[in-house]
Amino acid sequence: MTYQLWYWPGIPGRGEFVRLALEAGGIAYVDKARELGAEALMTDMAERRPEPFAPPYLVAGKKVIAQVADILLFLGKEHDLAPRGAGRLFVHQVQLTIADAVQEAHDTHHPVAPMQYYEDQKPEALRKAADFRAERLPKYLGWFERALARSDGGWLTGKNWTYADLSLFQLVEGLRYAFPQRMAAIASDYPTLFALRDAVAELPELQDYFASDRRLPFNEEGIFRRYPELDGA
Amino acid sequence: MTYQLWYWPGIPGRGEFVRLALEAGGIAYVDKARELGAEALMTDMAERRPEPFAPPYLVAGKKVIAQVADILLFLGKEHDLAPRGAGRLFVHQVQLTIADAVQEAHDTHHPVAPMQYYEDQKPEALRKAADFRAERLPKYLGWFERALARSDGGWLTGKNWTYADLSLFQLVEGLRYAFPQRMAAIASDYPTLFALRDAVAELPELQDYFASDRRLPFNEEGIFRRYPELDGA
Repeated sequence: MTYQLWYWPGIPGRGEFVRLALEAGGIAYVDKARELGAEALMTDMAERRPEPFAPPYLVAGKKVIAQVADILLFLGKEHDLAPRGAGRLFVHQVQLTIADAVQEAHDTHHPVAPMQYYEDQKPEALRKAADFRAERLPKYLGWFERALARSDGGWLTGKNWTYADLSLFQLVEGLRYAFPQRMAAIASDYPTLFALRDAVAELPELQDYFASDRRLPFNEEGIFRRYPELDGA
Repeated sequence: MTYQLWYWPGIPGRGEFVRLALEAGGIAYVDKARELGAEALMTDMAERRPEPFAPPYLVAGKKVIAQVADILLFLGKEHDLAPRGAGRLFVHQVQLTIADAVQEAHDTHHPVAPMQYYEDQKPEALRKAADFRAERLPKYLGWFERALARSDGGWLTGKNWTYADLSLFQLVEGLRYAFPQRMAAIASDYPTLFALRDAVAELPELQDYFASDRRLPFNEEGIFRRYPELDGA
């Protein structure tokens, strides 16, 4: 079966966490909105049942699965991208914590109103970003670091990567894009997490993808945005 | 096996979504921090492996499961609180969307810094709450309403309640507590959702619990807080 992935075409955003799992897993999919555009995405989404709350969503035959963590739970089970049993619950727990971190990173530039412009909530964004850099970022990165350091195989649950390892890579990349000064200043506190980032960057399964135009660069329309005034060492 | 539930003892908070599933499912558990206090919770959490990022967490023999949606995924499977197959993924997707709504409701009083006082982020909170009441609340409630209205059994996936139905009840109750004016003004737009709220309130499985002191009232230390200045029709 060839899956359909539907996500906003111009940004990596939340869709990228799904795309990385599909690409690294060698799973056949079509990136529908990159072929057909954002308008087609909105039309398609309105007609799907169950109706997604928001992109990304995955169409798998008659199944329509939304919410990144739910999509990855499905792909992890169907394509062995996560261990079985208690390990599967743990990997999912890490993924949900990544989702929380992603939301907070997003809220640094949209702390008040997700559908309004950044420029119209800038004073609030400055305060939110300062708190995120000082308090929340180290709290999240420290937890991921300790989880990885306790594993004996270099990946979250042992000697094979899981979908959550791929997502951790994307989270670190997004944070490095959005907060280059802050991430450079604290990188040495998280050696295992940054080693994981490098290991994913070098995965043979992903080299073709990274070299292709299927891999979208970060930009100021997405979740991770580089606004220098929100960064600082 | 008797589970251990660990959550902050003074508030319903995120722990209540787990508690409702345990109680309605007739599942044996001990509410550890309500017996031993918040300090015992912090000590216990620091020693658990895998380490929870935050309460609530469930101890199930050697398993330690954190993140509300992950705990409910586990309980749903072990105790038949959700259907199997595609229905399980859908129920989980609804639960993840509830989690997003809960986070946004929380952020109406803590839009800038989760560990600082509400009083120190009040101007930002006024703006965030206005946007939540006008834009986000109808978006979430509308999606839940349509999901329920499409089911033919009165519950999300048919004739039996799932853990996500219980969580929808708790979400509506929390929103009614925090935003009584706004929720009263828009209630008639969501008849199926409010009927579900009533059906959970009347579930025979929950009557003993609702009458007991195990059911904690909402207060201004939790996720759903009644600050009149953040409400409005």
